[in-house]
Amino acid sequence: MTENEITLALIQSLKDGRTQDFQHILDELQPYDIAVQYRHLPEKHRERFLLHLTVRQLTELMQELHRNDQVRLLERMSVDQSTKVLDLMDNDDLVSLLSDLEPTMIEELLSRMNREESSYIQKTMNYPPETAGRIMNNRYVWIPRHYTIREAIDKIRDFAEIAEYLNYLYVVDEDKKLLGVVSYKDLILGELDEQIDDVMYTRVVKVDALTDQEEVAAIISRYDFITLPVVDTENRLLGIITVDDVIDVVLQEANEDIEKLSASGKSIDFQTPPFVAAYRRLPWLILLLFIGLISGGIISRFEDTLQTVVALAFFMPMIAGMTGNTGTQSLAVVVRGLVGQKPDKKGTFKLILRELWVGIIIGVTCAVLILLIAYVWQGSLVLGLVVGSSLLLTLIIGTLAGTVIPLILYRLKIDPAVASGPLITTINDILSLLIYFGLASLFISRLM
Amino acid sequence: MTENEITLALIQSLKDGRTQDFQHILDELQPYDIAVQYRHLPEKHRERFLLHLTVRQLTELMQELHRNDQVRLLERMSVDQSTKVLDLMDNDDLVSLLSDLEPTMIEELLSRMNREESSYIQKTMNYPPETAGRIMNNRYVWIPRHYTIREAIDKIRDFAEIAEYLNYLYVVDEDKKLLGVVSYKDLILGELDEQIDDVMYTRVVKVDALTDQEEVAAIISRYDFITLPVVDTENRLLGIITVDDVIDVVLQEANEDIEKLSASGKSIDFQTPPFVAAYRRLPWLILLLFIGLISGGIISRFEDTLQTVVALAFFMPMIAGMTGNTGTQSLAVVVRGLVGQKPDKKGTFKLILRELWVGIIIGVTCAVLILLIAYVWQGSLVLGLVVGSSLLLTLIIGTLAGTVIPLILYRLKIDPAVASGPLITTINDILSLLIYFGLASLFISRLM
Repeated sequence: MTENEITLALIQSLKDGRTQDFQHILDELQPYDIAVQYRHLPEKHRERFLLHLTVRQLTELMQELHRNDQVRLLERMSVDQSTKVLDLMDNDDLVSLLSDLEPTMIEELLSRMNREESSYIQKTMNYPPETAGRIMNNRYVWIPRHYTIREAIDKIRDFAEIAEYLNYLYVVDEDKKLLGVVSYKDLILGELDEQIDDVMYTRVVKVDALTDQEEVAAIISRYDFITLPVVDTENRLLGIITVDDVIDVVLQEANEDIEKLSASGKSIDFQTPPFVAAYRRLPWLILLLFIGLISGGIISRFEDTLQTVVALAFFMPMIAGMTGNTGTQSLAVVVRGLVGQKPDKKGTFKLILRELWVGIIIGVTCAVLILLIAYVWQGSLVLGLVVGSSLLLTLIIGTLAGTVIPLILYRLKIDPAVASGPLITTINDILSLLIYFGLASLFISRLM
Repeated sequence: MTENEITLALIQSLKDGRTQDFQHILDELQPYDIAVQYRHLPEKHRERFLLHLTVRQLTELMQELHRNDQVRLLERMSVDQSTKVLDLMDNDDLVSLLSDLEPTMIEELLSRMNREESSYIQKTMNYPPETAGRIMNNRYVWIPRHYTIREAIDKIRDFAEIAEYLNYLYVVDEDKKLLGVVSYKDLILGELDEQIDDVMYTRVVKVDALTDQEEVAAIISRYDFITLPVVDTENRLLGIITVDDVIDVVLQEANEDIEKLSASGKSIDFQTPPFVAAYRRLPWLILLLFIGLISGGIISRFEDTLQTVVALAFFMPMIAGMTGNTGTQSLAVVVRGLVGQKPDKKGTFKLILRELWVGIIIGVTCAVLILLIAYVWQGSLVLGLVVGSSLLLTLIIGTLAGTVIPLILYRLKIDPAVASGPLITTINDILSLLIYFGLASLFISRLM
């Protein structure tokens, strides 16, 4: 059945009151598909649709909706329903939802929830955003070391409905300190009477709750793990992070890099209303407007030079543009490179040296090209030489600026991506104008 | 033990010929850690290190190395060793390695491999790059529908070493057509004598082998799957795609977007030598150089205007820069938005209308600001009005250009990210100069 056919079948079964048929269709749908159906459904059918969902299905639906729809659904449900749904929701999804609500609303919702769950949620929400503690959940299975494989399998069976993934069991002592990990492969390949102690793996890869989520993503993708345990400073097991959340983290971090590189403002998507989008973009633009006026100030200093040789103005946008472009290129290489690896001092020096060479190669190539063009176009060899040597210098400096500025920010523990493309472009504009008009003024007598 | 302590212990055990101790240390290391140790090891110890690895450890090491190191290791191994390693390697990793080798080398390596494996590899390599077929592997477990849960568990036990993840078993008929899927949760919760037929899930989410890898990543992250089956047009099961590869795809696609947005050239990382990096960046820069000269041509057309009112030159870089910046912002919003959703005609129209509004709001704000600044700085209201209204127009047009150009490319099935920031910036440069000098020429008599 296509999506539309399913929608029609669902509506029909709701209209006819055929509850069993309705459940039959839903049973075959993934949570994501249930959410798609809910969004497809005309408003007038939604009330009845929700009435016929089990608490588990309501929870699954909840977890797949966008933030606005989640809040609306929350308001639609009865107090009893919403409490059950919150109890059942994955902790990490719930924390993410609560983080966006009003404090009084958070308190009210938490007070209704199962005590154990709500205290876990509160603990999680105390960790700073974008850390391991904030995206962990408690849907894992733990066992003591003296268990046999048979006992471990029994425990898995009891928790199969609740645990998010069953790929690993975590072995802890009486203080919940993490001792080891057992994979379900070990369980399948071992003998039922063998003790967990003998099959567990003790060199556990784990992260502290305060680890940055980008680092967490790097570890999970490096080791190809499905889940990663989170511990406190005493090595007590606090929760696990699952690979599906890591994909979200990778996407989010890449989007943040692009937002910053393009200075396009935070979280603007296709649904953002125009005033909000403009409001988020304006601060950057106004900053860049003022920096752009510095270029104007520089040109006004060279007013006489420009008045004498107006042809100098013809090459101004090209030189400024090229310097900005090469800076943006270097910036992008550095920002993305830093995602994968953290260079030490030697590596940083090597990288700057590499970019210096790149700047020289690019500079010489483009300078020779523009020298010829300027000579042919304006018939003045001196003008060609001034334009060419300016371009050579500004390309080298622009390339280095695009490399060194993000690296300095990185050393200062500031996200290097805030040195956005537009910012580098504007700074390089200023540098290039200074060099260009400076050189031109030196040779002004020959240019006339 | 820290990484360095492990390295020292490994070297010591190799020197003393304590093979058992050596293996003891290795047993506790993850494949990624073995690779880290290998890279740490001084060249003179590597030979002996490799000699002491089992074939399985060699394979794990191989899979974790960078391409250059992989090729070097391949050359170092004996023919017998390398054949065994290739047979054991995950298909997707092997395909990715082979894709970068010479055709004669590929043929030679494949001819030595296990017949079944090499024919699977050849089939995989026939799919276009960046499709599901290219990143799938055959390390999954399949069962016929008439199996009982007990038989299924026995089969899992037989294949536990080979299968990459055991989260799902795939149920196929005698033609290998995909009938359903069973999760290990179903196996754990079911009765041993129950038939697979009764517990399997038949509405399987699957992809065709020609599906784009970006689409595959979207499906896996949408459904929070660990693996996703790949079928041919006849619904025959060809392989599975695993979540760890999807993380790599997401990272790769984000990097490609940033490379294109910044026009920074393909695959430049910290290790790329300067000549290669310069060679990859130059084509873009030379193209942008020529486009930049068009700006120069426009200015030369307005030589008289500029000669009369040199102050016009002061605002040139700011206007061109701002138009480029707003274009880059819109571009980034569109390119990243398209990763998550594919707007239909109505959505596209709404988006363009939204950006038009954004352009107007941004334009009015900045225009009023610059009108005041220009008036105060240069003391001419007419100049202020010319600069302000130019900025208003160019910001609206620049915002629209940054939105419409990538959307048109997207409709033409060209990757919208090729409309790079530098390209949009340069095009917006030209548009803004035309408008600015055009308006200035109209009011030239009042500006003098």
